[in-house]
This record gives sequence, structure tokens and C-alpha cells, in this order.
Amino acid sequence: AYAARFSPDDPLSALEVGEQPEPEVPAGWELVTVKAAALNHHDLWSLKGVGLKAEQLPMILGGDAAGVTADGREVVCHGVVAGADGMGNDTDPNVRFSLFSEHHPGTHAERLAVPSVNLIDKPAELSFVEAACLPVAYLTAYRMLFVQGGFRPGETVLVQGAGGGVSTAAILLGRAAGLRIWVTSRSQEKADRAVELGAHEAFESGARLPARVDGVLETVGRATWEHSLKSVRNQGTVVVAGMTSGDPSPAGLPHLFFRQIRVIGSTMGTRAELRDLLSFMAASGVRPLVDDTYPLAEARTAYERMAEGELFGKLVLVGE
Amino acid sequence: AYAARFSPDDPLSALEVGEQPEPEVPAGWELVTVKAAALNHHDLWSLKGVGLKAEQLPMILGGDAAGVTADGREVVCHGVVAGADGMGNDTDPNVRFSLFSEHHPGTHAERLAVPSVNLIDKPAELSFVEAACLPVAYLTAYRMLFVQGGFRPGETVLVQGAGGGVSTAAILLGRAAGLRIWVTSRSQEKADRAVELGAHEAFESGARLPARVDGVLETVGRATWEHSLKSVRNQGTVVVAGMTSGDPSPAGLPHLFFRQIRVIGSTMGTRAELRDLLSFMAASGVRPLVDDTYPLAEARTAYERMAEGELFGKLVLVGE
Amino acid sequence: AYAARFSPDDPLSALEVGEQPEPEVPAGWELVTVKAAALNHHDLWSLKGVGLKAEQLPMILGGDAAGVTADGREVVCHGVVAGADGMGNDTDPNVRFSLFSEHHPGTHAERLAVPSVNLIDKPAELSFVEAACLPVAYLTAYRMLFVQGGFRPGETVLVQGAGGGVSTAAILLGRAAGLRIWVTSRSQEKADRAVELGAHEAFESGARLPARVDGVLETVGRATWEHSLKSVRNQGTVVVAGMTSGDPSPAGLPHLFFRQIRVIGSTMGTRAELRDLLSFMAASGVRPLVDDTYPLAEARTAYERMAEGELFGKLVLVGE
Amino acid sequence: AYAARFSPDDPLSALEVGEQPEPEVPAGWELVTVKAAALNHHDLWSLKGVGLKAEQLPMILGGDAAGVTADGREVVCHGVVAGADGMGNDTDPNVRFSLFSEHHPGTHAERLAVPSVNLIDKPAELSFVEAACLPVAYLTAYRMLFVQGGFRPGETVLVQGAGGGVSTAAILLGRAAGLRIWVTSRSQEKADRAVELGAHEAFESGARLPARVDGVLETVGRATWEHSLKSVRNQGTVVVAGMTSGDPSPAGLPHLFFRQIRVIGSTMGTRAELRDLLSFMAASGVRPLVDDTYPLAEARTAYERMAEGELFGKLVLVGE
Ligand SMILES: [Zn+2]
Ligand SMILES: [Zn+2]
Ligand SMILES: [Zn+2]
Ligand SMILES: [Zn+2]
Repeated sequence: AYAARFSPDDPLSALEVGEQPEPEVPAGWELVTVKAAALNHHDLWSLKGVGLKAEQLPMILGGDAAGVTADGREVVCHGVVAGADGMGNDTDPNVRFSLFSEHHPGTHAERLAVPSVNLIDKPAELSFVEAACLPVAYLTAYRMLFVQGGFRPGETVLVQGAGGGVSTAAILLGRAAGLRIWVTSRSQEKADRAVELGAHEAFESGARLPARVDGVLETVGRATWEHSLKSVRNQGTVVVAGMTSGDPSPAGLPHLFFRQIRVIGSTMGTRAELRDLLSFMAASGVRPLVDDTYPLAEARTAYERMAEGELFGKLVLVGE
Repeated sequence: AYAARFSPDDPLSALEVGEQPEPEVPAGWELVTVKAAALNHHDLWSLKGVGLKAEQLPMILGGDAAGVTADGREVVCHGVVAGADGMGNDTDPNVRFSLFSEHHPGTHAERLAVPSVNLIDKPAELSFVEAACLPVAYLTAYRMLFVQGGFRPGETVLVQGAGGGVSTAAILLGRAAGLRIWVTSRSQEKADRAVELGAHEAFESGARLPARVDGVLETVGRATWEHSLKSVRNQGTVVVAGMTSGDPSPAGLPHLFFRQIRVIGSTMGTRAELRDLLSFMAASGVRPLVDDTYPLAEARTAYERMAEGELFGKLVLVGE
Repeated sequence: AYAARFSPDDPLSALEVGEQPEPEVPAGWELVTVKAAALNHHDLWSLKGVGLKAEQLPMILGGDAAGVTADGREVVCHGVVAGADGMGNDTDPNVRFSLFSEHHPGTHAERLAVPSVNLIDKPAELSFVEAACLPVAYLTAYRMLFVQGGFRPGETVLVQGAGGGVSTAAILLGRAAGLRIWVTSRSQEKADRAVELGAHEAFESGARLPARVDGVLETVGRATWEHSLKSVRNQGTVVVAGMTSGDPSPAGLPHLFFRQIRVIGSTMGTRAELRDLLSFMAASGVRPLVDDTYPLAEARTAYERMAEGELFGKLVLVGE
Repeated sequence: AYAARFSPDDPLSALEVGEQPEPEVPAGWELVTVKAAALNHHDLWSLKGVGLKAEQLPMILGGDAAGVTADGREVVCHGVVAGADGMGNDTDPNVRFSLFSEHHPGTHAERLAVPSVNLIDKPAELSFVEAACLPVAYLTAYRMLFVQGGFRPGETVLVQGAGGGVSTAAILLGRAAGLRIWVTSRSQEKADRAVELGAHEAFESGARLPARVDGVLETVGRATWEHSLKSVRNQGTVVVAGMTSGDPSPAGLPHLFFRQIRVIGSTMGTRAELRDLLSFMAASGVRPLVDDTYPLAEARTAYERMAEGELFGKLVLVGE
């Protein structure tokens, strides 16, 4: 599945499903036969042209993948290509990085070229479909909760905006790690689903909480920012990985300095963190939530469903 | 239950069960009716005279308690008395502290005087018996794993010496927090029990592990120290809270500096950490392992069982 | 010197200098004979009525002090009164605190009541006048640089807005700790003075810097916020302690999450940090910058100078 | 200067000074014309055969260097070769590393092959001789003090064993960073020199200190270990980078767990830390202490002086 053109208004019209050339495999990279590849909203943005240039077209989409290498190794593909050659130190703040489908062909294909350092062994306990859900949304949630936030068992974390991919991952992972998870949502249905998934309590967006929380996961931005700052305890932490409703105005600095709050930006995660995430899932039994799977040839149906919204978990394309 | 005298060789002969004066309640302290109080090995050491002076006799034993205050509040009693008046900052390295039964009467009694800052609300989800297991062994394990060690979900932690009170707590808490828990034991029976409790793998003491671990919990000391240093990964962490087999010789410093290992001492935990532990248990459903309960009047039977060893969980004395 | 009334437009008209009743000395507090007390902008805001209520009038002003206790101990007075009784744990996020002149009489007086835990020994190397400069502006800068920012020798820190009290303190302290200090200013004169004080380079406000910095100290807010976010390196830290130009709009979250920046609120500092600051000054020889000193009876002149601005260091009132 | 053979008893007899083949320059490495290269005790150990195998002979000695690349760039050479190709992530605990003269030819030569990632720009403020002193001893001290120890301005750090290369570096760097530095020595002369260098106080080895310290730097081991553990405050930090007097027995674990001390192993430092160290020196004016310099052709004289001991700073070989 690839972007044949850009269409800001009708992204699905920019999507084509069909043969593309085999990916080039630079020195130090390996060719992976894709067994499963998940969809992310990032893929719709690519169809709209966000982050891509016309001369990059056609661009194969997709950021998540699990598959098999030429020598039969079952792997999960870390989605952050670090440095010009893909071999860079992914913890070095100075190294530039891109995701699959940004500079290199994406994962919604039969075969994918991957830097060898990005190939992480798939634990036997996880299926390819489950493993393919992890490198973007679940890794993002893992890093937000356990690295940038550093939240400990028993602490309360507020997840703003139930229903998003990262939010769902955060509910499942946070619950499995012994955190107390509270969510907000504008929709009663999403709130109910969040509780079914394991959230301890769900609140209407903007509601006054029974107590201040140790931390907040923010991916909503403008619509929830003031609530996040008011809801976090003194010296608590707000981790921010996106802003689906835009950049907040004002920033709310007085909340920060009077109550010594910290706000920490986060994006994706490192190879070592993906390894820890996989070990966490294998060791704890927690599994990603899959809404549905589709053969790669039916990728258009999957993209249509994502564009419609109202998903309850990940959509995954499966290879043969 | 109190130490009437000291007996290094036959500690049970120093134990008496019977009436003692009501505890004094200094300003800022509250009287708690003890509903449940657990036993710890520390209580046997007290009967041997370790940490006590003759002029302190008779000393009521016991460090753990849950109960009810005069105004009906259901509480867990944090066992660290900080500062001369019990009101000290329990995170300040300069503040002196003691445990119940060291300077102030212990918990194996009908009523207990407790600094009001040490009274933590008992979550409704936990029974008094469960809550009484937590302030010593479980809080120690919580701090070792999540504060001093800072281990994250998916990381592997080796617990040396399955069967001890802190080790059992660490297996249960670590598992419930998404860690991968490995244990060692000299006894096949204890190893099997550890796996039943949730340890992912059990090894014979000193066995070469399949891979180095992110962290080690040490309470054994001399008998396992070299194994701990060899088993932890480069830049990994060994958390030490005791040494049942004595002080190791040699220290093994080359392991530390060549591989940049950190060794962190830990003892008990703070009031805030006890609050987090209670929240963790309520939120995750994990519960302490109770071997058996006894009425306070039958405390001698409980002490005899602890002296015999071979416990599978905590022994708890229950009030009326 | 005290606020006899409030005057948002002409704060000096609300100031009176003259006798006030001796301060009450609650249990656990001590009476200090004030040898020196510095002025802060906070004192002008108090005259405008910010943070005070009419029923608190007359309120003695002043947040900084150094002096002598009844038994002859030379002390610096930590300015944060923690908890209702002043004995609270000043590292506990749940403890409420106030500064002198907010709930308790301030330091611009002959005698001052201080919680005994707030009395820190004055090092012999510092004069009373020097010591009196530290508890507000210098402690704030110390915490921003070395606790919240955690900047290490050789790292580059940008101080926004040369000339302010905290900024001047940050230049002096950062330089003495081996940091590389860059400042911005809208005034060439202030920029020149900053370099004389030890700043390594001074830039016009908003100027593109030669390289991104490891950290930023923000006390300006709206006028410099975007520049701060653009100037800090990936995974760098912005420490915020105020906003003299107002709350920024927008917040600039994309800078945070794309480049994993952290923004940390900070206010004042703890008793332990004041002890470290005093030790730092005694050990390194760095001294606070004093613009001028005035007898307490001439406090009005000092206030007038502060209201005019254009200070080059602290104004200090001296007792007999 | 190279090891022509090994001699545990008479290391200087294993030293030869003369022509050796030009170093090979693998892909990604660069050839550096050595302008200055310092001596370290590690070089004497190499002559004794420690860490080397006979088949590696002849091995050019030396771990420190500053010089000029083929295109005229003035550089300091980071001495840690990370990974098989020298391009590894030097913060990754799993990456194997070696120092110059361990697997690759050392720095006591006219030309040196260096992984390009290890070439750090020499600040103009530092001479080549000064810069050549830094990559081993000063970088080790920098990491111990500011990364592993994390000591803050005003904190007190005890340096065990004045006179060693790392100890001298720690005194100079710690002092320039606003720490309070205490040292111990068995020799009055070394103690006096330490105070001249900037140590605030010097004590006889094993002496009871006026107060407990925030941290200890340990490179002595057995002879000072118990003193280090007794001297550090509750929750303080001992950083260990070597043990010239052997491995301590016993380990002293009770000090660790009763008082929650942390012991952190440290070795060398990262490229990023070397960059910070260079910036620190340029920004603060602190300079390494140089005992004497020798032309490369007179390396034997320099090695003889090092073998005799009683140095007061680094010995540096200078190229043409
Ligand atoms: Zn607000
Ligand atoms: Zn060993
Ligand atoms: Zn912007
Ligand atoms: Zn000892």
C-alpha cells in the first residue's frame, strides 16, 4: 500500500494498492519478509502529504512490522531509522532519525529493508500480528509511562483522551505494570471501553478529579492542557507526545513554577526500550488490542476503516 | 507478646504472652486498636537481645500492624518512627529513626501508640490481615524494586534466596509490576514454590544464568555475593537490604569498576512509599501471601512456627 | 518597613517606615535580631496588594535575612515557612508553604521570628550583608541550575533576561560552578554588565545563537519563550521560575515532543539546598553582588531605588 | 615507545623507543599526527604484561593524545574504542570497548589511528600538552564527580589517596566546580601539595573527619574502604574507579543497608563527557597539572620518572 500522490482533503484517493519495486538493501541492512504490519494515523497524514515531498512519491506506507529475515529469524522491526546509514546511536540527542515511510519505504509491503540493529527477536509468546502492533503506538506509550514519566506501581496516571492508539496502549500497559489508570473522554462509549480494557476510572473531559494525579499523559493538547496542569499534583509530571487538538494557549506557566510541575516531551522509543516492551508483554501476559486483520491485498479496506475512526484496537495487514 | 528477657540461644524462652501496661500516647501520636499484626524475623532477633538493652525490658515485640483509631479510621501503621518525637521528615538522611519494638512498644499487643503521620488509610480492598503484612517485608521489597532499583516493566531481576520474607514479597510485587523475576534457592522445594508464586524461572544457588540480569535483590550476602556481581549486566544495579549469611569477603570491587555496576543499600521505606504500595495492591489485585493466622493469645504458637522456619508466607496475629 | 495599605499604581505610597509590635514567637520558633535584610521585587508586589489581604495589614515586608539568635548564633534565615507550624517537611509536595511577609511578619524589621528548622549557620566567610542576599534570589538560582536543571560543568546554559535578580545570581553561581553561561538582554548596558559579572557571551534578545544550549533559565515568559524552546538542544531542559512578561501563547508543544525537551517548574529552594549554597559560596569564594546598603531607618530610599529599577546587584537594609 | 616484551618485575626493561610501522587506518578512522601524549600508570602495567598477550607484541603504549588530523583539524583523541569497528555507541552497556594500546596501537608515537567519532575539537584555550592530559585521568575524574556521583556545588567530597593521577584531577576539577574537596594521604608532603592545588582540607589516612561527607572517590580499595564507608553520610555515594591496594575484605554491607549508601563503579568516560570536560576547562580556566614534558625520543626518561613515582602532575611526550 503506497501513496501515489497527496490529497489533503481525501487521503484515501491518494492510496494505491499494488506492486512496487523491491526495496534496496544498503550495507548493514537486512531484507525482512513482512508477516504483519499495523496501521497508524501517521499513514493517513502521509497520504495528505504531511512530512513528505512530491519527489518521494510513490512512497510505501506503514511504520510497524514483524516478519522473518532471510535466515529465518522471527523479528520485530524497530521503526526509528537513526542516522544517515541507519546505524546511529538512537539515544544520542544529536543523531537525526526518521520513521519508516518518511525517508525509507514503509512496512505495508511484502518485503521491507531494515537496519540490522533495528531487528529485535520476536518472543515466541507473541504472534506476528500482536508483535506488529508494538513499534509505534505501544512503544510510544511504554516510553511515556516508564522512561520519561518514570511512574511507579501504585501511582495514579491520567490518560487524556481515551480511544486514541497511544491512549489504549497506555491503559493496557499501565494496568499491567500496577499503575492506577484514570482516563478522560468526551464519549461515554469510549469511556466504557477504556474501563473494560482496565482503566480504573473514567471521567468526562475536563471533570474535576477526586484527587490530583501523579502524572498525566498528554496527546490531545489545546482541549485538555489546562485540565492536565490543574489535575497533576505538586512536583508531578506531564508527559507530552502529541496534540491532536492543536497547540495550547496560553502555556500555563504559573501552574509549572508555583507547583514545580515538570512537562516532558516524548516521541517513539529506543531499541533497548522496544526490547524491554517485548519482554514485558511476554513476562506479564498483557497483549495489544487488535480490532481486525486484513490481507495485504485488502489494505484499502483497512485504510477506509481507519479513516472512518471508531476503532477498538489496531488494524493489522497480514502477509502470506 | 513481649521479650521478658534475652536468650541468644533459645529465643522462645525469652518470650512471654500476657498483659502489659497500656502504651503511653505522646502529643501528636494516636492510640490504635490492633486488628492484625504480622511476625518478622526481626522479632526473633529482639528475643536474642539484638538491638535492645536490658533496661528496655519488657519490650513488646512486633513491627507490622493494621488497626482502627479511636475515631474509627481503618489504618495501616507505618513502622518507621522518625525523629525523637516521631514527627520527623522520613526522607531526610540526617533524621534518626527506629522501628516499633526498638524504642517504642511493638505491635503484638491489643493497642499501639503511633505517630499520627504514620497512620495511612487502609484501602477497603485489603483485609486487616493482608494490610498487616505490608509495613516491613513488603515495603522493603517495594522500595528495593521500584525506588532504589528503579526497575522497569520487562526488565529481569534476580532475587537471591527464595523463601525469605522480603524475597517472597519481591516475587509477588515484581511479577504484578511486569518485571521478569528469576530466583535462586538451595532447596528444590522453595524453588518450586517461588515459581508457583509467579517467579518466571528458578535456579540452583550459584548457577550460571542464561543471560545477565538488569538487577539483583540481595539479602543473603556472603553466600551469594560473588554470584550477584557476576550475574548483573554492565551498568546494572544490585540492591542490598541484608546479609543472612554474613558480610562478603572480598568485596569484588573489580566487578564494580570494570563494568560500572551500582550497589545500593536499602532499608524499609517511607510513608509515601507505603501509600504507593497500598495503592498498588488495591489497583492491581496482588495480595500478600499469608501462611496462617493466630489469635493474639496464641502468639507463642506463631513464634514457634517462625523459629522452626519452613513458612510459606506471613504469620499474622489477629486481635478481637 | 511595612505595607500600611495597598496601592497597585503607586506602591511606594503604601510603604511606611516605623515601629511595629514585636513579632510573636510560636513554640519551636526563635527570635532573630536582624543584622541585614535584602529587598526583592516581591516586596513591591506586596505593596500593590498582590498575595495579601486587607485584614493582614499592616504587614512587615521582606523575605531575606541574616542575623543573630538570642543565644548568639549567627544565622541565615531560610525564607520558606513549611506547614501551618513552620516545622513541615519542606521536600514534601503536599505541604503548604509561605514566604516571610506572606503569612508571617517579614524581615525588614529589627527582629524576626523564624522556625528553628529554618535557621542555618552563617559561614564565617560571609558577611551578614552577603548572607542576607541569598535566601530568595540566590537560592532560587541555585535550585534552578543544580537541582531542577542538574547542569554539569562545561554545559552551556542560557539565562534569559540579564539584569533581573535571579539572572544575576545565576550568572555568578553558574560561572563559579564551571558552567558556560550565555545571556540575552534587550539592553546593551545590561549585556555588558552581565559579561563583566562572568557571563561568557551576551546576545540580543531573540538572536539566533551560535549553537543550541543544554539548558535555559526562564523567568521572562511570553517575550522569550519561543526563543527558549528553539534554543535548547534535543532532550535539553528549560527551567522556569517566573514570567515577568506574561504567560506565553502558544505553549509550543511541538518543540517539546519532537525534540523531547523537558520543562521544569521551580520555586525557591529547600533548607538543605540553602545549606549547600552557603557551603558553595564559602568553598569557592563567589559572593553575591551588592548594589548598596542602607540603614533600616532609610528603607524608603532603598525601596525608591528598587522601584526606579536599574540596579546592579542587591539592595540590603542593615540593622544596628 | 612500545612494549617489546613483558617484564612483571622490571617493566622498564620491556620498553623500547624507536621506529614502528605506520598504524593501519581502517574505514571510518583517521590518521592523527600526535602533538602531545601523556603517560599513565596503565602504561607501566602494559609493560608488565597486564591486559596484553604475547602475540600482540610489539605494542605501542599510551592512552592519551592530542594532535592534528590530515585536514588540519586540532583534536583531542577520546581513548575508548567502542565496538569491533570503533564506531559503537559508547553509552550502550552491551558494547565491548578497549583503550588505545590494548587492542589498537597506542598514542606514544608520531602518528595514531583514531575512529573518527573519537575526534573531539581541541578548544583554542588549551595547548596540545594540556589537552593530552585529559582523555584518561581527567575524564575519569570528571565522570566520577559529575556523572556517577552527581555532586553539586557546595557538597563535600572526600578524595582518598592524594597524589594519584585521578585524585589530582579530582581535586582540580572538583574545586573549579564549586565542590568542597577533602583529601586523605599517608604522606604529609602529598597532603600539603593537595592543599596547594585547591583541596580545602587534608587529613591523615583513616582519620576521623569533622563531619560526614556527601561523597567519596575511591581508587585505593582495601586500605581505605572501611574509612570510606564510615565517612560517607547516610544516603551518600561512594564512586569507585580502582583499587591500588587490593580488593577490600570484608565488603562492609551493613554500612550500605543500614545507612542506604550507594556504591557506583566508574571507568573512563564517554565522548560526550569528554566534550563537556573540554568545555568546562575552556570556560572556567582550570588547567591540568603538568609535571614535565619530554620529546618523544626521550620517552624512556619519562617512563623512568613515572616508575620512580613522586610525580606532581602529568608527564607528557611531545611530537615535533
Ligand atoms: Zn491556568
Ligand atoms: Zn569476583
Ligand atoms: Zn515554535
Ligand atoms: Zn565496618
